[in-house]
Amino acid sequence: MKAAKLELLAIPGLPMIKAGDDLAALIAEGFKRAGLTPRPGDVLALAQKIVSKAEGRSVELAKVKPSERAVALAAEVEKDPRLVELILSESVRVVRSRPNVLIVEHRLGFVMANAGIDQSNVGPTDGVERALLLPIDPDGSAKKLRARLGELLGASPAVIITDSFGRAWRRGTQGIAIGAAGLPALLDLRGNPDLFGRTLQVSISGFADEIAAAASLVQGQGNEAQPAVLVRGLSWNAPDNPASELVRPAAEDMFR
Amino acid sequence: MKAAKLELLAIPGLPMIKAGDDLAALIAEGFKRAGLTPRPGDVLALAQKIVSKAEGRSVELAKVKPSERAVALAAEVEKDPRLVELILSESVRVVRSRPNVLIVEHRLGFVMANAGIDQSNVGPTDGVERALLLPIDPDGSAKKLRARLGELLGASPAVIITDSFGRAWRRGTQGIAIGAAGLPALLDLRGNPDLFGRTLQVSISGFADEIAAAASLVQGQGNEAQPAVLVRGLSWNAPDNPASELVRPAAEDMFR
Repeated sequence: MKAAKLELLAIPGLPMIKAGDDLAALIAEGFKRAGLTPRPGDVLALAQKIVSKAEGRSVELAKVKPSERAVALAAEVEKDPRLVELILSESVRVVRSRPNVLIVEHRLGFVMANAGIDQSNVGPTDGVERALLLPIDPDGSAKKLRARLGELLGASPAVIITDSFGRAWRRGTQGIAIGAAGLPALLDLRGNPDLFGRTLQVSISGFADEIAAAASLVQGQGNEAQPAVLVRGLSWNAPDNPASELVRPAAEDMFR
Repeated sequence: MKAAKLELLAIPGLPMIKAGDDLAALIAEGFKRAGLTPRPGDVLALAQKIVSKAEGRSVELAKVKPSERAVALAAEVEKDPRLVELILSESVRVVRSRPNVLIVEHRLGFVMANAGIDQSNVGPTDGVERALLLPIDPDGSAKKLRARLGELLGASPAVIITDSFGRAWRRGTQGIAIGAAGLPALLDLRGNPDLFGRTLQVSISGFADEIAAAASLVQGQGNEAQPAVLVRGLSWNAPDNPASELVRPAAEDMFR
C-alpha cells in the first residue's frame, strides 16, 4: 500500500440515477467520455446513494405504517414515526437513543445513525417524501458492479461503495466503505518490518475506509454531487477481502 | 469542499528526522526538489511521527520510572510498565483496559490506544529503546509549521498533522488529523441545500480527518515511509478552525 502520487478523478456526466438503471453501464460511459481506461490498482468509489437508487431501495414514506414501538421511539427521538419504522426494520438493535439521535446496529453490523437511511438528495422534488435504504448486500453489489464494469470496459477497477459515518469520540462524519470487491478492504500488515526493521505494531489498516474518506473529498455535497470517483495510483499486496471484514464483531467490540 | 480532480503527491527526499531539525526547512527543500510551489487550496499532511521527532518528543524507556499504578496496570494489559507509565502521564483517564488493549483519553481529548505512543519507526536501531509521544500542542505545531513554510516558500499550504487511530465498531485504523492550521478542520455544511433544494441533514464533515485518511494512503508503512504529502485540488468556503474542533467533548459523547 503505497503511492508516490495518487489521483482522484470524478467520473463526469453521470445522470441522476433511477431505480432499475444499469449503473455500471452509465459509469462505463463516463469512463469513455473522460478518455479513461482501467489500470491496475484503480479503485472506483461509488456513493451508496446511487447504488441504492439503482437497486430501487427508495421507499415512499406515505406507504410506511409505523409499529407501536416505532411510534414510541419516534416520540423519544423526535423523528418521523415512519422513518423510525424503516430504521428499526433495517436494524438488529438500538445502540443509543436521545432527542435527535438514533444510533442502531444495522442488520449488516454497522453501528450508525438512522440505519444509514436519509432523505437528502432523494428527490426529485415531486412532493412525494421518500427515504433511501442501504443496499441489501453492499459487498455483493460491489462484486456485481465490478464484474459488469469488466465486461463493459475490458478490465475492471476494484469497486468500493462509500458512505459517511458519524463516529464515537470525534465530531464530523468521515467516509467509510460499506461494500468492496477486488481489493483487501481490511489490510493486515502485521509482521511487516518497519523502517528500522522492528515489527510494525499498529498495522491493520482500514484500507477501503481510507479510500472512501479520500473519495468523499471529491464526491462533495451529501456524497452525491460527484458520486463516482476513480482513485488511481494505489498498489497492494494482499488477498482481497470484502467490506464486511471492516465491521468489528459485537463480541470483540468494547464500545457498543 | 469539492474537486473534479484531487492529487496527492509525496514530498520527496525527506531525511530521517531528528530532534531539533527545522522540519519546515526540510519540507521546503523537498518542495523545491520536486518543482512544487504552493497553490491556493493546497494542504500539506505531515505524519505525527516526524513532527514529534523534530520536537524532541522521543523518550528513552530506560529513563522512565514506572509508578505503582503503572506497574499494576501494565500487569493487567501485558505491556511494558515503563510504556504504561508514559501512557498514563499523557492521559487524563483510562477508558478501557484489557490484555493487549489500553485505550485512554489523551490530555488533548483524543480517545485512543496507548495515548498515541508507539515504538515503530522510532529508531535508529542503536540498541536504545525509545518511545515517541504526540506533540505537546499539535494545533500549535501545525500553525508554526505553516507560518515557517510561508516564510520559506513565499506562500503556505494549510497544514495538518496526521495519525492513525483505531475506532469503535470498525476494524483497522483510519487516518485522522490531530493538528491543523489554515483550513476548517471541522466543516459545517448544515443549512446548505442538497441537490434537490432540501436542507442537508448530515452535513458536518470531519474535513481534516478525511484529508488525513487520504494522505495515509500515500504515507504508507507506519505513516512514515513518505511522511509529508501534498494534497492538491481542494477548495472550501468556511472559516478556519483547528483540529481540536474534531474532538467530541466528553459531555456530548455517548461512547466513553
